[in-house]
Amino acid sequence: QWVGGIDGFLRLIDQTKLPVEEVYFDCNSVEQTHDAIYRLVVRGAPAIGIAAAYGVSVAIGTAMKEQADARKAALAAIDYLATSRPTAVNLFWALDQMRVVVNEATDQELADRVLQKAKAIHEQDRQTCAAIGQHGAPLLNGCRNVLTHCNAGALAASEKGTALAVIYAAHELQPELHVYADETRPLLQGARLTAWELARSGVDVTVLCDNMAASLMQAGKVDAVVVGADRIAANGDAANKIGTYPLAIVARHHGVPFYVAAPVSTFDRTLADGAGIPIEQRDAREVSHPYGTQTAADGANIYNPAFDVTPAELITAIITDQGIIQPVNAANVAKTIGLS
Amino acid sequence: QWVGGIDGFLRLIDQTKLPVEEVYFDCNSVEQTHDAIYRLVVRGAPAIGIAAAYGVSVAIGTAMKEQADARKAALAAIDYLATSRPTAVNLFWALDQMRVVVNEATDQELADRVLQKAKAIHEQDRQTCAAIGQHGAPLLNGCRNVLTHCNAGALAASEKGTALAVIYAAHELQPELHVYADETRPLLQGARLTAWELARSGVDVTVLCDNMAASLMQAGKVDAVVVGADRIAANGDAANKIGTYPLAIVARHHGVPFYVAAPVSTFDRTLADGAGIPIEQRDAREVSHPYGTQTAADGANIYNPAFDVTPAELITAIITDQGIIQPVNAANVAKTIGLS
Repeated sequence: QWVGGIDGFLRLIDQTKLPVEEVYFDCNSVEQTHDAIYRLVVRGAPAIGIAAAYGVSVAIGTAMKEQADARKAALAAIDYLATSRPTAVNLFWALDQMRVVVNEATDQELADRVLQKAKAIHEQDRQTCAAIGQHGAPLLNGCRNVLTHCNAGALAASEKGTALAVIYAAHELQPELHVYADETRPLLQGARLTAWELARSGVDVTVLCDNMAASLMQAGKVDAVVVGADRIAANGDAANKIGTYPLAIVARHHGVPFYVAAPVSTFDRTLADGAGIPIEQRDAREVSHPYGTQTAADGANIYNPAFDVTPAELITAIITDQGIIQPVNAANVAKTIGLS
Repeated sequence: QWVGGIDGFLRLIDQTKLPVEEVYFDCNSVEQTHDAIYRLVVRGAPAIGIAAAYGVSVAIGTAMKEQADARKAALAAIDYLATSRPTAVNLFWALDQMRVVVNEATDQELADRVLQKAKAIHEQDRQTCAAIGQHGAPLLNGCRNVLTHCNAGALAASEKGTALAVIYAAHELQPELHVYADETRPLLQGARLTAWELARSGVDVTVLCDNMAASLMQAGKVDAVVVGADRIAANGDAANKIGTYPLAIVARHHGVPFYVAAPVSTFDRTLADGAGIPIEQRDAREVSHPYGTQTAADGANIYNPAFDVTPAELITAIITDQGIIQPVNAANVAKTIGLS
């Protein structure tokens, strides 16, 4: 994604244009990077952390060109990028690491070390995704049909993603594995992104509207659900794309295992439970005017939260890069993610 | 909706164009009537029964103009209109009544009696809707926020509808009553139709995506759910718009009462339970290309059932024109709808 040296730029596939167009969006300024995160050109908890890390390098590049104070620009960029989206904690986790490097580096080494750190975060995420896949695949042993929501795949992280890393790893062992992808209103990341990347990878995928998953489960056609997460509290309550919570309730009602896959960077140790997770409210037009067509009647109010919180007790297991958390509770979370 | 005398035609508001355009679709032939039902120009279980009944009059009008056999044309129209949609039983209920009249009437009185019968079915539905509203309103006593799915209002029936008749009647008693309307993918009848008719009637309404209802209930913001039905089995299992079943599960999970409102003509006495209800599968493009924009990736399969079945045990009460069925079971269904 990073193109060039320390004066390079961040190149992103523009996810708002998929699946119809594959075009790139180049971030040559920190404002463009912020805009890319805010508009969901890049989205998915791990991916926005990585993009924001590179955004600090972009800010230093701009400052060097303008002969401005690079360290000051980097710290301002960190504060500014932290305002791009509120819920996914990986964004703040990545920016906190960048801040340490910015504060520690000498003037001479600043640009190099910041770019190295961003690349290290990116590389670490690749290994994290692979580890999640390896830990999670055995849970899908014998499953014929797996359902997922939103996109927690290669487009949301590096390489294989989180929830989809589990599915890709299971698919290698069981090529007949079939995936149901919730379309995921309002922005349809499931239909547009998950179906796109699974189909390209040779995984048989079926798209359905979010409200159709229950009838599939009623017919016994879903063996497991695997989703990602944007922030997980210390007790295992997990915020993820809106629509995850009802899916967990419906899965429990039908006795279908419900798995959350996420790197340990998604855990927020400062929150005892999910009640404290900030939930982003987005523009009403995402609901009322999908793709520019007015669908909601004039005079109606609109409710458009981007996330909901699934309580730990509805989650069968959390699949992390450090291992499986099962049953999901504060003690097991602490044990797996290394809290004392 | 009927314009003119026995040589008149059926005029429908074209629901596929709402809420942006209010235009009418005139049915001057039985083919146009079939098309209007199939394409959802007119939809909602009671409304398609009424439209089909008038469609028989349209067929007789055409036969008279062409000096063809009117009775033969009417019987052919009944068979043909019965193929327009499979799930809502009101369609077959209305056509069965029309068949009796067509078979009984003399040649001289045929056209008159058929049109009279269609108008009688229409008038009966008005009274039915009013009765449902009167029976159901007390159940919403003290409710501040009510959630509904799809459109079971004036556009789905006569006058006030079924589920919305209950809401309109409750709103007269409690003007502060606020309604949450699920948008109802794929065809967005909630956003387009329910929000349109409630806003026009002065009822405060908020549109949300189907997958957002659970987070509202989690926050304690929904006091009751009221939906319609397309076919109800003898034990109370109810088929309704896709997305009703997960809503019932989620309501039960949160202890929110879940009401189904429907006329007794929606009951199918021939089915012991919901397993036998035929579920219409509709065109993949409704999911993959909403409003002409491709959203689902190439290479993905599509699942698009139009209805799901909610088991009786998840339904708090069924509100009919003949009274309330509560608890919902075969004995209480039989008692209320007059089976012996």
